[in-house]
Amino acid sequence: MDFSLTPSLVALQERTRTFVNDIVIPRERDPRRAQHGPSDDLRRELVGHARDAGLLSPQLPRELGGLGLSYVEKAVVFEAAGYSMLGPVALNCAAPDEGNMHLLDAVATPEQKERWLRPMAAGETRSCFCMTEPHPGAGSDPSLMKTTAVKDGDDFVINGRKWLITGADGAAFTIIMARTIIDGEDVGATMFVADLPTSGFRIDRELVTLDSSFTGGHAEILLENVRVPASDILGQIGQGFRNAQVRLVPARLTHCMRWLGAARRAHDIAADYARKREAFGAVIAAHQGIGFMLADNEIDLHTARIGIWHTAWLLDQGERAGLESSMLKVYCSEAVWRVVDRCVQILGGMGVTGDTEVERIFRDIRAFRIYDGPSEVHRWNIARKLNKAAA
Amino acid sequence: MDFSLTPSLVALQERTRTFVNDIVIPRERDPRRAQHGPSDDLRRELVGHARDAGLLSPQLPRELGGLGLSYVEKAVVFEAAGYSMLGPVALNCAAPDEGNMHLLDAVATPEQKERWLRPMAAGETRSCFCMTEPHPGAGSDPSLMKTTAVKDGDDFVINGRKWLITGADGAAFTIIMARTIIDGEDVGATMFVADLPTSGFRIDRELVTLDSSFTGGHAEILLENVRVPASDILGQIGQGFRNAQVRLVPARLTHCMRWLGAARRAHDIAADYARKREAFGAVIAAHQGIGFMLADNEIDLHTARIGIWHTAWLLDQGERAGLESSMLKVYCSEAVWRVVDRCVQILGGMGVTGDTEVERIFRDIRAFRIYDGPSEVHRWNIARKLNKAAA
Amino acid sequence: MDFSLTPSLVALQERTRTFVNDIVIPRERDPRRAQHGPSDDLRRELVGHARDAGLLSPQLPRELGGLGLSYVEKAVVFEAAGYSMLGPVALNCAAPDEGNMHLLDAVATPEQKERWLRPMAAGETRSCFCMTEPHPGAGSDPSLMKTTAVKDGDDFVINGRKWLITGADGAAFTIIMARTIIDGEDVGATMFVADLPTSGFRIDRELVTLDSSFTGGHAEILLENVRVPASDILGQIGQGFRNAQVRLVPARLTHCMRWLGAARRAHDIAADYARKREAFGAVIAAHQGIGFMLADNEIDLHTARIGIWHTAWLLDQGERAGLESSMLKVYCSEAVWRVVDRCVQILGGMGVTGDTEVERIFRDIRAFRIYDGPSEVHRWNIARKLNKAAA
Amino acid sequence: MDFSLTPSLVALQERTRTFVNDIVIPRERDPRRAQHGPSDDLRRELVGHARDAGLLSPQLPRELGGLGLSYVEKAVVFEAAGYSMLGPVALNCAAPDEGNMHLLDAVATPEQKERWLRPMAAGETRSCFCMTEPHPGAGSDPSLMKTTAVKDGDDFVINGRKWLITGADGAAFTIIMARTIIDGEDVGATMFVADLPTSGFRIDRELVTLDSSFTGGHAEILLENVRVPASDILGQIGQGFRNAQVRLVPARLTHCMRWLGAARRAHDIAADYARKREAFGAVIAAHQGIGFMLADNEIDLHTARIGIWHTAWLLDQGERAGLESSMLKVYCSEAVWRVVDRCVQILGGMGVTGDTEVERIFRDIRAFRIYDGPSEVHRWNIARKLNKAAA
Repeated sequence: MDFSLTPSLVALQERTRTFVNDIVIPRERDPRRAQHGPSDDLRRELVGHARDAGLLSPQLPRELGGLGLSYVEKAVVFEAAGYSMLGPVALNCAAPDEGNMHLLDAVATPEQKERWLRPMAAGETRSCFCMTEPHPGAGSDPSLMKTTAVKDGDDFVINGRKWLITGADGAAFTIIMARTIIDGEDVGATMFVADLPTSGFRIDRELVTLDSSFTGGHAEILLENVRVPASDILGQIGQGFRNAQVRLVPARLTHCMRWLGAARRAHDIAADYARKREAFGAVIAAHQGIGFMLADNEIDLHTARIGIWHTAWLLDQGERAGLESSMLKVYCSEAVWRVVDRCVQILGGMGVTGDTEVERIFRDIRAFRIYDGPSEVHRWNIARKLNKAAA
Repeated sequence: MDFSLTPSLVALQERTRTFVNDIVIPRERDPRRAQHGPSDDLRRELVGHARDAGLLSPQLPRELGGLGLSYVEKAVVFEAAGYSMLGPVALNCAAPDEGNMHLLDAVATPEQKERWLRPMAAGETRSCFCMTEPHPGAGSDPSLMKTTAVKDGDDFVINGRKWLITGADGAAFTIIMARTIIDGEDVGATMFVADLPTSGFRIDRELVTLDSSFTGGHAEILLENVRVPASDILGQIGQGFRNAQVRLVPARLTHCMRWLGAARRAHDIAADYARKREAFGAVIAAHQGIGFMLADNEIDLHTARIGIWHTAWLLDQGERAGLESSMLKVYCSEAVWRVVDRCVQILGGMGVTGDTEVERIFRDIRAFRIYDGPSEVHRWNIARKLNKAAA
Repeated sequence: MDFSLTPSLVALQERTRTFVNDIVIPRERDPRRAQHGPSDDLRRELVGHARDAGLLSPQLPRELGGLGLSYVEKAVVFEAAGYSMLGPVALNCAAPDEGNMHLLDAVATPEQKERWLRPMAAGETRSCFCMTEPHPGAGSDPSLMKTTAVKDGDDFVINGRKWLITGADGAAFTIIMARTIIDGEDVGATMFVADLPTSGFRIDRELVTLDSSFTGGHAEILLENVRVPASDILGQIGQGFRNAQVRLVPARLTHCMRWLGAARRAHDIAADYARKREAFGAVIAAHQGIGFMLADNEIDLHTARIGIWHTAWLLDQGERAGLESSMLKVYCSEAVWRVVDRCVQILGGMGVTGDTEVERIFRDIRAFRIYDGPSEVHRWNIARKLNKAAA
Repeated sequence: MDFSLTPSLVALQERTRTFVNDIVIPRERDPRRAQHGPSDDLRRELVGHARDAGLLSPQLPRELGGLGLSYVEKAVVFEAAGYSMLGPVALNCAAPDEGNMHLLDAVATPEQKERWLRPMAAGETRSCFCMTEPHPGAGSDPSLMKTTAVKDGDDFVINGRKWLITGADGAAFTIIMARTIIDGEDVGATMFVADLPTSGFRIDRELVTLDSSFTGGHAEILLENVRVPASDILGQIGQGFRNAQVRLVPARLTHCMRWLGAARRAHDIAADYARKREAFGAVIAAHQGIGFMLADNEIDLHTARIGIWHTAWLLDQGERAGLESSMLKVYCSEAVWRVVDRCVQILGGMGVTGDTEVERIFRDIRAFRIYDGPSEVHRWNIARKLNKAAA
C-alpha cells in the first residue's frame, strides 16, 4: 500500500495551486463572470493562461495536447483546480465538457475525434449533453426517455424536449440521447452528435438556477425535426445507455474531485475568518462551538479525499468500480455539502452575502446531491447491488 | 389544556389563506418582484389588497388599524401569511417592519408613535433597524458595537458603519443603535430614530445576498455625522440593549411563524410533485426513500408549530419566555431548514431551478439559522441559563 | 388555546414527583431489582406504597380504584412516574399491563372485567400480551400471523409460537392474538384471554435482552393446544386487529410519556455531573462542547413534551389521532434516544458503568425505536396517510 | 499510489478470516464467555488455537514470536480478527494488552522485556494499565491526576485510586501512572510496573458496565502504599505522559481496526436477516427504508476502512500522524456506532435480544466514542491544532 504522491505529481499539484492562486482567483471578481458562469471572452482568457502554464486539458491524452493523467493524478489536479469555481473552466476540465471529451475519446471514430474532440481539447469550443428531460420524461430514471430519433433514409430525425442542459448556450455541438425508431421499431437509446446551431435545435428558455458557475448556464431545449446523419452517431445504435455509463461513472468521480476543492476553499475562507473575528472575548475559532465545526470540516474533507483517491485508483486498475463510485458520490456530495453549510454558519451574516466566495459555492454545490444520480437513487442502487451480490 | 382555535381565529386563518391563495400567490411571478423583494409599487398594491380584505397590520392594536392579535393568534395568521414570501409584505407584518412597529408601540412616546408608527401601520411607509456592524463591530456579540452617538448640545451626532441593514433602500426612517457618549463618558447604547433621507446617512452599497425576498434588500450603511435631536431618542438614554430585547424576543418568534408557513409551502409543492412524478415504476411518493422524507417533513412542521404555539401562549401570559423562545428559535430554524432542503431533494433537478418557489424559499430561509442569534449563540445561552438556574 | 395545568393536576404532578423521589428512587439499588425488572416481592412493595399515596393505577376509572385521568393528565403523571424506571411499576401504569388494562376496560364484558381487570387494577396481578411472533411470523407486519385458533365445539384450540412477550413470567393471564379458523375457514384474527398457568402455554425460554426493567422480562412462548372457551374471547371474533388498534394508539403515546420522564432523569444526572466535573480548567458544563449537548437535550425534551400534550389533548377530544400519534411516536422515541445517548457521552467513562441510572436507561430505551411500530414502519404509514389524504 | 494488498497479506487476511469463522465464532456461545469476557480457561484455549494457526500476537516482532506486522498489515489482520469479539482475544491483540505490549516493546529495557513482555507475547499472561481515575481525578484531562508516587530510598510508594481499569482481574502485572514526588517536589508523571498481586494493590470493586467483552472486565482499584523499586520504572522519571502518547496514538488506531471488524460482523448479520425476513410483501432488504440503511452501513464501513489504511500507512512511514489519528478516531468511532445502531434497527425486536451477536456488539462498541479520548476532546484538539498551524 502506498499513499504517496510521486514527485512529479506533487510538482503538478503545486503548479496548479499557484496557477489558481495567481491567475484564476484574481479573476473571480471580473465583471465578465456573469449569472451563468464566465463569458466566453473570460473563458478564453483563462484557457489561454492555462495553455501558457502547460495546464490545459490535463486529463486528455498527450496526442490531444493533454497531460495524460491517470485517475489518481486527476484526483489531485482537479481538486487543486476546483479551489476556484473558475479553475476547471481555465483548465478545460469542467463539466459537462470534461465528461463529453472523455466520452468522445472512448467511443468516437477517428474522424469524429478530429471534428469534435480536437478543437474542444484545445479549449476552442464547448459542448453540451442532451439527456435529461422534463417531467414526465427521463430524469433519474432514464427509461422514461420520450425523445425519439426516427430513421429516415440515411438520417435520423429527432424530436423531443430536454432540460437542465448545461452549457447549451454557446456550445459548438451537442450530444443527444434519444430512443431510436427504425422501421417503427424501438431499437433502444442512441447517442447522436449535432453541430450547433442546427435547424430544429432551439433553446426554449434559459433556466433560472440556484447555481451560477456553469459556463452557458442551464437551458430547456426544444428538438423539432433535428436531422442527424447516421455517420454522426456516437458509438453504436441502441448502445446509448451503455455509452452513458462510460461517461457517467468517471464523471461522477471527477465531480467529487472538483467539488472537494471548492469545499476546501470555503473551509479556508471560513477558518480564516474564524481566526480573526472576535466575539464574546475571543476569536470565534477559540470557542468550542466553532472549533468543533472546523474539526468536522477537516474530517469530512479528509475522509472524502482518501475515498476519492481509492476509487480513482480502482479505475486506474481498469476496474469498473460501480459500487465504489456510487458510494463515494453519495459520501462526497453529502460531506462537501455539510462542509460548505458549516462555512456559511461560521461566517454568520457574511456567509449569506456575496462578500466571500462561500455564498456562491453554497449555491453551486447544492445540486451535486442531485445530478449524476441523486443520493436516493445511488443508495437504492448500492442496496440492490449488495442484495444481488449476497443472493 | 386546550389546543383548539376559537371559531373567529379559524375564520381569520381561513380568510388569510384565501387571500394568500387568491391575491398574493398569483403575483409571485410579477416582474416587479425583483432581486430584492417586491418593488414599492408592488408592495403598495399588495398592501392595498390586504387593507381591502381587512387583513392589514393584523398584529397591531385596533387603534392603529390592526386586529389586536395575541401571540397565539399571530402564530396562526403569520403562518398563513408566510405561505407566500409576499404574504407578510402584503399584510404588513414582514421583518424588519413588524419588529420595528412592535418596538415603537412598546416604547415610543405618543408623539413618536403619531410621527413614525401610524403611517407605517397604514402600510404607507417602511423602516430599517441599524444595529449590526461589519467586523470588527457588533454582530452576534452586541458588546462590540463601534458606532457612537456623541452628545452635542441638544443633539447627538452619530458616526459609524452598519451592515446587513434590511430594507434601508426606500425606508422612511431608521432606528439606529449607538454607544452614547456624553461629556466624554460612555453611558451605554441608545436607540435613535432618524427620518430618511437625512444628512450623513448613506447607503454605501447594496449587498449581494443569498436571499431575495426582503423588501429593499440588505445594505451597508455609512453614518457620518448624522445629527439626531434628543427628542428623537427611542426610550431612555443607555437603555438601547434593554429595548433591543423588547424587540428581539418576540421578533424571533414571529420569524418562526412566517418561516413555518414558507416551509409548509415548499413541502406542499414538493409533495404534490412527488405524487405526480413517476420514476422506476411508480410515482416517487410511493417509494419509501421519498415517502420517509415527506413523513419527516410533516413531523418537523408539526412539532415546530406546536412549539411555536406554546411559546406564543407564554408570551400572551405576560411571561418573558427567554429560554423557550431561544429553544424554539433554534428548533424551528433548523426544522424548517431540514424541510426545505428535503423539498429541493425531492424535486430533483427542478428543485434547483426557479421553476418553483422552493428554490427561492431555500435561498431565503438559510439565513434564519443565523440572524436573531445564530443557533450556536442560542445554544450557548440556553446552556448558560440552565447552568445558572441549577447553581 | 391554553397550556396551563389545572391546580389539581399540578398538585398531582407534585405528589407523584415526591413519591418517586422519596419512595421509588431509594429502591433503585434494591437487590430485588434483578436482571428482568423488580421481583414480584419488590413490585408488591412498591404498589403498596403507591396505594397508600393514593397514586395506584391513576389512569383507570374511579370505579376501578383509579383517578380517572384524561390523556393530558396521564401525560403529566406518567412523565413524573417515568422519572424512575420503577415508577410506572409502582403506580401500576407500566407496559404491558397499562395497555392491557386499557384494552380490557374498552372491550371486555362486565364479567371479564371483574375476573381479569379488577384484580390487576388493584395491583394484585400482572398480565402479558401474546401478539408478536418469531420469524417468519407476525412482527411489524401483523398480517404474517402464524398462530391459529381452531374452533372445536364451544372452545378454540390455539397453536403457535410467540416471542418478545413481555412479562409472561409471573403473569396471571395472557391475551393471545390468533388467526381464527372456523369450519376450516380463516375468519380473521381474534383476541383470547387465558388464565396462567394453563395447559399448553409454555415459556420456551427467557430472552436475554438489552433492556432490564420490564417486570418479568421477555419470553418466547410455545402454544400447544391451548384451549380457550368462546366465552373468553375479548371483543368479537375476527376483530382482533381492530381491538389491537384500540390498544396500540394510546399505548404508543403512554410509552412516550413514561420514556420522556426517563430521559429527563438521565439528563438531570448528566447535567448535574457536568456542573461538578472539572476538566481543562473549568467544569465541563462550562465548555461549549458539553453546553451545546445540554441545550440540545433541553430542546429535545421540551419539544417532545409539548408534542405529547397535543396528541393527548386530541385523544381527550375523542379524536383517533392516528397520524399525530404516529408522528409523536417517531419524534419522541428518537428525541429521547438522542438525549440519553448524549447523557452517556457527557458522563464519559461513568456513562457506560452502572454507577448511575443512565446506563440502564440507555439500554432500556433503545427498544422504543422498535416496538409499537419501528420508526421505519411509522414513517411509511405517515407517508401513505398523507399521500392518500392528498389523492 | 497503491491500494493493493500484497499476496502474502491477502493470504494472511484469509487465514485470519478462516480461523475466526472456524475456531472463534463457534465458541461465542461457550458458557465460559461470561459477563466480563472469556474466562481465563477459554482465553487460553483460544490462544492455543491461534498459536497452532501461526496467528498469535501477529503485531509483535518475530523475535517475540509475532509476525512483525506493519500498521497497514495490522489494519487488515485486526479487522479480520475483530469480526468476532473473541477474535482479538484469541490472537492476543486485544486491548489493553496489545497497547501495553506495544509500549513495553518501545520503551522497556531488555530486562523488563524478558520479564513482562515475553510471557505476554506468548499469550501466557495478561496485564492492565492504571491511568484513569474517578472524579475529581484524571479522566479526559490527565493533568488532574491525583495518584502520587513518592520516592522512598530506592523505591517509590504509590497511593491513589484508579478506575475503569480494564482487565485488572487476572492481570499478571500492571502499569501505573502516577505523579512523582521526589524530595517533596513534583517531577511529573511516571510509569511504574508492578507484578500482581502485590501488597497494597486492591480491586475495590468490579464495575457493572454496558460492555461485556473485555477479558477481566473493568475495575476500580485502590492503591495503598504500593511499593515499586526504581528499576521497575518504565522509561524515564517524569516522562509518563510522553510514554502515554507512544501508547495512545497507535492504540487509538488499532481500536478502530478491531471495531471495524465488529461493525462489519453486525452488518453482515443484519443484512443477512434483511434478505430473509419478509414483511409487507417482500423481504425487508427490498424495501427502500431498509435498503438505504444497508447502503449507509456499507458507505460508513468503506470510508472508515480506507481512512484507517491511510493513517496506518502514515505511521508506517514513521510519521506521528497525531492529527490524522485523531480525525480517524472520531470518524471511525462514530461511523461504526451508526452502523451497529442501524443493525439493531434492521433486526427489529431481535436486535435487542442476545439471539444475535449484534446486541453484544452494540453494548460493547458504545464506549469507543468515549475512551482513548471522547469525540469532544478530539474535536477540540483537532481544532486547536488547525488553529495553531494557521497562526
